[in-house]
Amino acid sequence: MSNVKKIKYHFSGCGASFSDSDVVVFGAPFDGTVSFRPGTRFGPSAMRPDSYGLETYSPYLDDDLSNYKTCDFGDIVMPYGDKDLALLRIYETTKKILSAGKKPLMVGGEHLVTYGSVRAVFESYEDLHIIHLDAHTDLRKTYYDVELNHATVIKKCYDILGDGRIFQFGIRSGAKEEFHWAKKGHVTLHKYDLEGLDSVCKLLKDKPVYITIDLDVLDPSIFPGTGTPEPGGITFKELIEGFSYFLELENIVGADLVELAPNLDPSGVSTAVACKCLREMILIMNKK
Amino acid sequence: MSNVKKIKYHFSGCGASFSDSDVVVFGAPFDGTVSFRPGTRFGPSAMRPDSYGLETYSPYLDDDLSNYKTCDFGDIVMPYGDKDLALLRIYETTKKILSAGKKPLMVGGEHLVTYGSVRAVFESYEDLHIIHLDAHTDLRKTYYDVELNHATVIKKCYDILGDGRIFQFGIRSGAKEEFHWAKKGHVTLHKYDLEGLDSVCKLLKDKPVYITIDLDVLDPSIFPGTGTPEPGGITFKELIEGFSYFLELENIVGADLVELAPNLDPSGVSTAVACKCLREMILIMNKK
Amino acid sequence: MSNVKKIKYHFSGCGASFSDSDVVVFGAPFDGTVSFRPGTRFGPSAMRPDSYGLETYSPYLDDDLSNYKTCDFGDIVMPYGDKDLALLRIYETTKKILSAGKKPLMVGGEHLVTYGSVRAVFESYEDLHIIHLDAHTDLRKTYYDVELNHATVIKKCYDILGDGRIFQFGIRSGAKEEFHWAKKGHVTLHKYDLEGLDSVCKLLKDKPVYITIDLDVLDPSIFPGTGTPEPGGITFKELIEGFSYFLELENIVGADLVELAPNLDPSGVSTAVACKCLREMILIMNKK
Amino acid sequence: MSNVKKIKYHFSGCGASFSDSDVVVFGAPFDGTVSFRPGTRFGPSAMRPDSYGLETYSPYLDDDLSNYKTCDFGDIVMPYGDKDLALLRIYETTKKILSAGKKPLMVGGEHLVTYGSVRAVFESYEDLHIIHLDAHTDLRKTYYDVELNHATVIKKCYDILGDGRIFQFGIRSGAKEEFHWAKKGHVTLHKYDLEGLDSVCKLLKDKPVYITIDLDVLDPSIFPGTGTPEPGGITFKELIEGFSYFLELENIVGADLVELAPNLDPSGVSTAVACKCLREMILIMNKK
Amino acid sequence: MSNVKKIKYHFSGCGASFSDSDVVVFGAPFDGTVSFRPGTRFGPSAMRPDSYGLETYSPYLDDDLSNYKTCDFGDIVMPYGDKDLALLRIYETTKKILSAGKKPLMVGGEHLVTYGSVRAVFESYEDLHIIHLDAHTDLRKTYYDVELNHATVIKKCYDILGDGRIFQFGIRSGAKEEFHWAKKGHVTLHKYDLEGLDSVCKLLKDKPVYITIDLDVLDPSIFPGTGTPEPGGITFKELIEGFSYFLELENIVGADLVELAPNLDPSGVSTAVACKCLREMILIMNKK
Amino acid sequence: MSNVKKIKYHFSGCGASFSDSDVVVFGAPFDGTVSFRPGTRFGPSAMRPDSYGLETYSPYLDDDLSNYKTCDFGDIVMPYGDKDLALLRIYETTKKILSAGKKPLMVGGEHLVTYGSVRAVFESYEDLHIIHLDAHTDLRKTYYDVELNHATVIKKCYDILGDGRIFQFGIRSGAKEEFHWAKKGHVTLHKYDLEGLDSVCKLLKDKPVYITIDLDVLDPSIFPGTGTPEPGGITFKELIEGFSYFLELENIVGADLVELAPNLDPSGVSTAVACKCLREMILIMNKK
Repeated sequence: MSNVKKIKYHFSGCGASFSDSDVVVFGAPFDGTVSFRPGTRFGPSAMRPDSYGLETYSPYLDDDLSNYKTCDFGDIVMPYGDKDLALLRIYETTKKILSAGKKPLMVGGEHLVTYGSVRAVFESYEDLHIIHLDAHTDLRKTYYDVELNHATVIKKCYDILGDGRIFQFGIRSGAKEEFHWAKKGHVTLHKYDLEGLDSVCKLLKDKPVYITIDLDVLDPSIFPGTGTPEPGGITFKELIEGFSYFLELENIVGADLVELAPNLDPSGVSTAVACKCLREMILIMNKK
Repeated sequence: MSNVKKIKYHFSGCGASFSDSDVVVFGAPFDGTVSFRPGTRFGPSAMRPDSYGLETYSPYLDDDLSNYKTCDFGDIVMPYGDKDLALLRIYETTKKILSAGKKPLMVGGEHLVTYGSVRAVFESYEDLHIIHLDAHTDLRKTYYDVELNHATVIKKCYDILGDGRIFQFGIRSGAKEEFHWAKKGHVTLHKYDLEGLDSVCKLLKDKPVYITIDLDVLDPSIFPGTGTPEPGGITFKELIEGFSYFLELENIVGADLVELAPNLDPSGVSTAVACKCLREMILIMNKK
Repeated sequence: MSNVKKIKYHFSGCGASFSDSDVVVFGAPFDGTVSFRPGTRFGPSAMRPDSYGLETYSPYLDDDLSNYKTCDFGDIVMPYGDKDLALLRIYETTKKILSAGKKPLMVGGEHLVTYGSVRAVFESYEDLHIIHLDAHTDLRKTYYDVELNHATVIKKCYDILGDGRIFQFGIRSGAKEEFHWAKKGHVTLHKYDLEGLDSVCKLLKDKPVYITIDLDVLDPSIFPGTGTPEPGGITFKELIEGFSYFLELENIVGADLVELAPNLDPSGVSTAVACKCLREMILIMNKK
Repeated sequence: MSNVKKIKYHFSGCGASFSDSDVVVFGAPFDGTVSFRPGTRFGPSAMRPDSYGLETYSPYLDDDLSNYKTCDFGDIVMPYGDKDLALLRIYETTKKILSAGKKPLMVGGEHLVTYGSVRAVFESYEDLHIIHLDAHTDLRKTYYDVELNHATVIKKCYDILGDGRIFQFGIRSGAKEEFHWAKKGHVTLHKYDLEGLDSVCKLLKDKPVYITIDLDVLDPSIFPGTGTPEPGGITFKELIEGFSYFLELENIVGADLVELAPNLDPSGVSTAVACKCLREMILIMNKK
Repeated sequence: MSNVKKIKYHFSGCGASFSDSDVVVFGAPFDGTVSFRPGTRFGPSAMRPDSYGLETYSPYLDDDLSNYKTCDFGDIVMPYGDKDLALLRIYETTKKILSAGKKPLMVGGEHLVTYGSVRAVFESYEDLHIIHLDAHTDLRKTYYDVELNHATVIKKCYDILGDGRIFQFGIRSGAKEEFHWAKKGHVTLHKYDLEGLDSVCKLLKDKPVYITIDLDVLDPSIFPGTGTPEPGGITFKELIEGFSYFLELENIVGADLVELAPNLDPSGVSTAVACKCLREMILIMNKK
Repeated sequence: MSNVKKIKYHFSGCGASFSDSDVVVFGAPFDGTVSFRPGTRFGPSAMRPDSYGLETYSPYLDDDLSNYKTCDFGDIVMPYGDKDLALLRIYETTKKILSAGKKPLMVGGEHLVTYGSVRAVFESYEDLHIIHLDAHTDLRKTYYDVELNHATVIKKCYDILGDGRIFQFGIRSGAKEEFHWAKKGHVTLHKYDLEGLDSVCKLLKDKPVYITIDLDVLDPSIFPGTGTPEPGGITFKELIEGFSYFLELENIVGADLVELAPNLDPSGVSTAVACKCLREMILIMNKK
């Protein structure tokens, strides 16, 4: 039977054990507060098999997943219909990874999951900064009368971190009040594209940084599989260039990739895009 | 401009005012506690335009929607991510309809919405009985650690109504414990099909009855557009026959049709099925 | 190169020349008057390649397409936006086939195309009778203010043929007026299924008969790919049984299969169903 | 019940009454002359619910739909199968809006609908000019033997307006004769992109201008949901830049957005794109 | 972290170790010889996550997967483009399971995979009989000039087993020659449905039996997700009744479920059907 | 009947006879060695009807298919499950075209088909060079233990042609070893885009050149319908610019367009893109 190989069920290139790994990937398949189109709960499970359609080698970084030991911790079972419990479990998982001296890399799920992870990371790094790539500001105080929500998540993170710690890029949608509130200096909001990301990465060189990437920062031409598509986004090549700036950061302490809703894109391209972003992020976080 | 007609936005045949109507239809587009595949939130909005692909005349009942005044009350805005608030709003809407001496006919949404409506109806009719058509028992106490959930909804209704008031038909899926608990006589559970519905309708002739139809009672061959399809269900002709038994009931005080997830069936057949069931139910409730 | 075979572009089993054939199949890809969901224009072009997924041998009839010479005449180019011109071209094509002493078997397109074909057939057979399988009566006088329309087509045929010549089966949708008008004896309308088709075929044994099959007579569980799906239809096995009655007819002078909208059924099942019906009809028409 | 909000059925931000509004949006869901893939009839009905997935605030214009009163007049019922009657109804609707001193903004439907609207606008503004964004020339004299057709519509408008009044941008498909006819100066045809739109808007500063946007001017990467996709189109960012030039026009007297076929793009991105274009156009027309 | 549960990647109810289990499930995701529509390679990977949408309890058998220890051995990596190597790996895997005294239950993949498994089982059980549920005879000698093929697989099994060992049910498609060859008594072919399965199971009571279920034996109304849909098949209830006959068999030594092509059925119903069949087969094989 | 036109079944503009034509197009619908998602077998059959949605006139080249005589030779019947036989038939077909002094233009199918064609072309042109546009290197020696495979095809061509003959563009995916092997000078590999194609075309001006275009060289935003989408590709405008460089080549002796999997892109855009590329390539090959 030496020739019978079996198909693997972890993310491609993430077959190392928890204890051996520096970076730990896990899935947070929650989409319970979405107002428009749900489906991000299927993100991690769609990405795993399709990640094998991709090479482990990145020509952009001239590096290979096989050069590192990375663990796929699996997906957390989510208590659908209970967002507080969902966030608690994300918090606990992130804590466990941090306690072991490893870096968490979460795959969503909707953007609200970031709150569970950031809350845990902040407890380890008081001087935490956030780089936030997104089409949407996510700075509302409430949304449809609910406070804890995919549209309020960055505001909730701000409530933990405070002024001047959050840097937003690619933003092209939000309420007027959100843009104006940001302008007051609470957060740094860059509209439409990644201009300025280079400088911000240099600025935050030695700070502990959490990177949260709402994949809808990409133009829906290349990433249609998401709940609230916003035309006018960045191209994949621009995102890859953005990733190269992350190499400046010496202390990425956690990250997430959120808002893939795979079934909304039957071509599978969105899932392939998410997988390639995950590959690049794993390599970047391991390099540091 | 006398020839320029405009397209209507209410359910076909439901253009009467609230005050003129005996039966009031409303949408409850909530799917926040679903464990497998979401999407029932789009049920009511998919049904409205497609209801015009259907005649207002029913050859089964030899009756026509145009013979009655029925109001489409519209869809309630749902606070996504907050099931308690969602149920409260359904409760309030149902109360308003009942207070005006009218009969509520709710279109889901996931099955949990029934709880909001039944709670209100029970306050008006202490002797309330429920006829429940479904593939699933929905009799769990908790599901994924959550108590208020699409899989526990009939158990929650039982907690209000008590023993002997609930009659289930078409059931073909559940945990062993649910089937055994039902067998103890708490509820009357008929497996697989509608056998016995005839007798139950005669038995409940003069009782106040709430009818809740989880459309997944139908075989997924004819109703694939639902979150948890269960092969082995009833045919559409069997359901139509079942509807004819409802004519025995002299006091249908409320009803609902739930669990259409229209995007899961790109052919549109499931939506057409739901629309035809709605037409029949409106006619049946108006006849009484 | 003797082993290099090329893929054929005619319906499977229909590779004979026009002059060699008794039965001539042609496509009428028109859907310009549809009120709900268009797409039947793609019926014939979807059926051709998929007809090769099917055997040429029918176990139902113990007969094989290879036992006969049948011509695929191709599809007529339709002047989209001009229904009169479209019907004229169908009329001309049917005339040409009849003039050559052959039997036309048209593949739609929407049901209106039948009018063009029946008009031509009636000119050859004054005593023409029609057997009509459909979910819908198609007996309106006008529809959305338009007289020539997929919902008025059988009424238009009636205007040519007169009382007592049209026999409808499987009908389960229509306006009240249509059912009542039929009841007066103008046409014979059988509701819901094919009950009575056996007797009608015996009755019309030696009459010239045109068979028009709106495939939505089938339940949408097995034929979802159609513009206006109507649950409660017949099963495929019932249709096959109905086909066996056609063998009683000694003078089938023309036929059509209409209302496949292949893109509405991404599974391809509806197209497979239409192909199998076409195979059976070709065999039945050749046997006579 | 003060907290129970109901879902609205008009385009987002268009809830004002007819009499209160300067700009009146209406739907013309007609696709009866399409030669390739139909489905634009579903454009307006798909856009209404999805328009709520979008903010009312435009960061591009730093303006908000809530700053204006805009009326959604609804969709006209179309007499399918009768293009003349369809155009008549569009004409009548546009007349009604113009008579009340308001600006019509029509949502198609196929491009032929523009002819009904332009005919009405021309009766009010003899010096009318047209800015036409499209992938296709639409300058044929006949198409498939039919004169009034989605591929002849701009030629038909030219027949009303005469030489030098029509400015085309983004054109990348047509018959050789169409390009050559345009070159003779009858219309001004800019190939491939919006280069020159800036100057044209300055040139037409004080003229009455009708803007017709066939959304397939966009590259199908961002707008796949259209009947005849033509690769090589403009990006969404280029279109947004084009919109900024429209602010130069002081007298936009009417406009339309056509050729969204929502079901051809199951991801919903095309519908989102159309909604964002509609938002921008409403703001631009209100600003003037 | 005691409350953080992780999602499992094996078939629902199949979490036992290889050594603990009597029945071993494995996936053979091969579809390299398909002539019409490929995609069965995605069968096992689509079934695993969706198997959790199903209960582990079967009301039909009043039994639960949790009553047994069953191992999910995973999917074999297939050498795409090399059918001989693919069959060899299936053979080796089946041998390994048999050598350990366990029963293999293979999930395809296309029907050709059965040949690899049957070849191994036959080496352990010389008196092997096969019960074959299918829409197609699969008795060709060659297909498109190729001998080893999804359309020849049962003929290849016959070549191993010899006359009188194979019992076919549900057959409704094949070449005339295949039906005639079968009639000579080489195999027992039952057309259209499962009539006679009861008797055959009694007849084979104490024989070693391999059961191969091509899921296209089901009517495509309930199982559209397969490469070559054949209308006129059995209902799910008929299949469940057929399963009850299998309880008569005292020596089921192996089995397979093949021909699910999940992407051809975007509703997910076909995958749900396959999962339920798998649950029933696991229970039946464990009971014995 | 003079007005009844029939729909044609060859590629638009390719209705000339074999003997009259300089360029002969044929389909090679084979996808038997694909490792990830199959479906390219449907490429040619999807392109034929959709090619009529496109004009025969190219504004890019100011040239028209009607200016040349081009033959559509049809599609080769492929022996599914036997890649050697498939390649043999492609080889034989290409030989036949070359023997008649014509230029073959093959439409795939998966990329492996190129090997059959190149092998034949090389026998006529010993000094053959290849220009290869692709996202993937396709330079593996074996893939999943199989040597002849879509991922090894260019390496197999290299084995025929030798060092320095192959020029790759747009490459953004491959194993580390492939990139390094290429770097040694065996082939010339240009990463990410078409930079350098201009010079290469000038360099190869008078050499016999075979052009193989794996359409996944395009970004999946514009070409999602392919088995292994790789974000970060070139735009359609860049490809059109690349085509203009091909006009420098004086001796294009053969070409192919491969890897369209039409069903993976339900919007039809990918098929439209492939058709437009085919139109341009036919014009370019005829011009020479």
